[in-house]
Amino acid sequence: MINKLIAKIQKMNAPIVVGLDPMMKFVPEHIRKAAFAEYGETLEGAAEAVWQYNKGIVDAIYDLVPAVKPQIAMYEQFGIPGLIAFKKTVDYCREKDLVVIGDIKRGDIGSTSEAYAVGHLGKVQVGGSEYYGFDEDFATVNPYLGSDGVKPFLKVCAEEKKGIFVLVKTSNPSSGELQDRLVKDSAGTEKPIYEVIGGMVASWAEEYMPENGSYSCVGAVVGATYPEQGKILRKIMPRSFILVPGYGAQGGKGADLVHFFDKDGLGAIVNSSRGIIAAYQQEQYEHFGGEGYADASRAAVLAMRKDIGAALGRL
Amino acid sequence: MINKLIAKIQKMNAPIVVGLDPMMKFVPEHIRKAAFAEYGETLEGAAEAVWQYNKGIVDAIYDLVPAVKPQIAMYEQFGIPGLIAFKKTVDYCREKDLVVIGDIKRGDIGSTSEAYAVGHLGKVQVGGSEYYGFDEDFATVNPYLGSDGVKPFLKVCAEEKKGIFVLVKTSNPSSGELQDRLVKDSAGTEKPIYEVIGGMVASWAEEYMPENGSYSCVGAVVGATYPEQGKILRKIMPRSFILVPGYGAQGGKGADLVHFFDKDGLGAIVNSSRGIIAAYQQEQYEHFGGEGYADASRAAVLAMRKDIGAALGRL
Repeated sequence: MINKLIAKIQKMNAPIVVGLDPMMKFVPEHIRKAAFAEYGETLEGAAEAVWQYNKGIVDAIYDLVPAVKPQIAMYEQFGIPGLIAFKKTVDYCREKDLVVIGDIKRGDIGSTSEAYAVGHLGKVQVGGSEYYGFDEDFATVNPYLGSDGVKPFLKVCAEEKKGIFVLVKTSNPSSGELQDRLVKDSAGTEKPIYEVIGGMVASWAEEYMPENGSYSCVGAVVGATYPEQGKILRKIMPRSFILVPGYGAQGGKGADLVHFFDKDGLGAIVNSSRGIIAAYQQEQYEHFGGEGYADASRAAVLAMRKDIGAALGRL
Repeated sequence: MINKLIAKIQKMNAPIVVGLDPMMKFVPEHIRKAAFAEYGETLEGAAEAVWQYNKGIVDAIYDLVPAVKPQIAMYEQFGIPGLIAFKKTVDYCREKDLVVIGDIKRGDIGSTSEAYAVGHLGKVQVGGSEYYGFDEDFATVNPYLGSDGVKPFLKVCAEEKKGIFVLVKTSNPSSGELQDRLVKDSAGTEKPIYEVIGGMVASWAEEYMPENGSYSCVGAVVGATYPEQGKILRKIMPRSFILVPGYGAQGGKGADLVHFFDKDGLGAIVNSSRGIIAAYQQEQYEHFGGEGYADASRAAVLAMRKDIGAALGRL
């Protein structure tokens, strides 16, 4: 799956992933009205609005970007109907041949992480049959519990030829409260926690390489808002693709991103969520209006591609 | 909700939470057969089996224990049908007046953690109406992203009078890879990460105290498998209830638990999952047989209560 992701990035000249994080305030009025008319102002109505909104965006951008990243929390907040909309979104994006990165940030003790890995990337056994639960292509994983919590995902990735992105240095303002703390390594040298986790990711990546290709199925999450750390982590994890959130709305700019990539302009994929999906609410794109929200998203993808292309010097 | 939990612990003389983590291998044959006969060997069939299995256990133990802790991963692995079984379990346990701790270990950047908090503990806005998504009483929260990721849960807890348990020192073998690393505090003193997180929990706990009572709605997870660390963390977090997993199957014993409690025998609640729910598969309780699995669970709860009571010196 990492090789498919890379091939699509190269073909589309777009190291871009669109974050499908549908907050209700982003959904245009005509979509909300139609959904509420059919299902009422209920969880089912909200889920229908979210699904129709996503579908419009996906139809408008699937030929421009290699991947999407639905954030499961934005669906889970609407309970079961919301999660049904998540599953519909995952399935629809896969039909459109988009690589789907499930932003689930799961992580637990071994046997429990195994259940998450099976449910999101693999197949679960029921009697004599096997079923995919959510069936994303990649998942994000939280490393707080150590390698016990990550290894079950690695096993499933190897079986299913899928992948994970481990949280290393997250994009949010308080990420440093824990992740920047200095600890001593075995040689007595001080380094921040994100480098320690980066080192663990690098060794898992070495172990889980596809048969061909230069990147592993084990990637990392490093926020665009921390370009200096990105530069260091790019070197520590030479085999790991970096998923870079925080571009756009969170403050990361194209020029900040150059350090996350390798010398061939690969090795990273940059996420934008509201900057794309709610583009029509920005001054620059407001002329599209709510009815034209999907076209606004398409225009925002093209602008993002140009911004990143310029930064990487391959306009 | 923390006051309700404490009142129930005192009334039942049982600082015990039963982990409803239904792996298919625990579900007795007669339940699996009936579910598969109705729904086939499908995700729906698995979900029905899990739900019937849970219901039997809950009916057998609800008068003995104050709380249950369904581990959402064990449901999520069966996709949408599994999550419907999770929701049915949460609702049924609340009907039986059990306190429900959703073991969800969520945590993300601010706006995303807000969606998780709303979906699991609070209400989501849909047009002019508000709905509960999953509606647990407590949730477990992962602190890797720092305070941004925890604060939205605190806000919802205050509004809804609910609570959280923040992961501090987890029960699994590799928890130390990150959590035991030594860092320097502001005074230059070295301390392990779990003490740093424990300190953060303590300050949130001070801020989020209920009107009456001596414990906060902000608790912590500390594994029974690490009693020495439990002793230290009990002191660092005087206002935080400790949720203690790892008793029984993971190796924690009653005698190890004494340090997690305060001098009044309060301040902690000990979880057992497979030790209770799959008791009938253990030699000690195998005479109950698969058909008597729920009675075996009841017997295991009584034995656990006795073990902990003896350790706390209040048989």
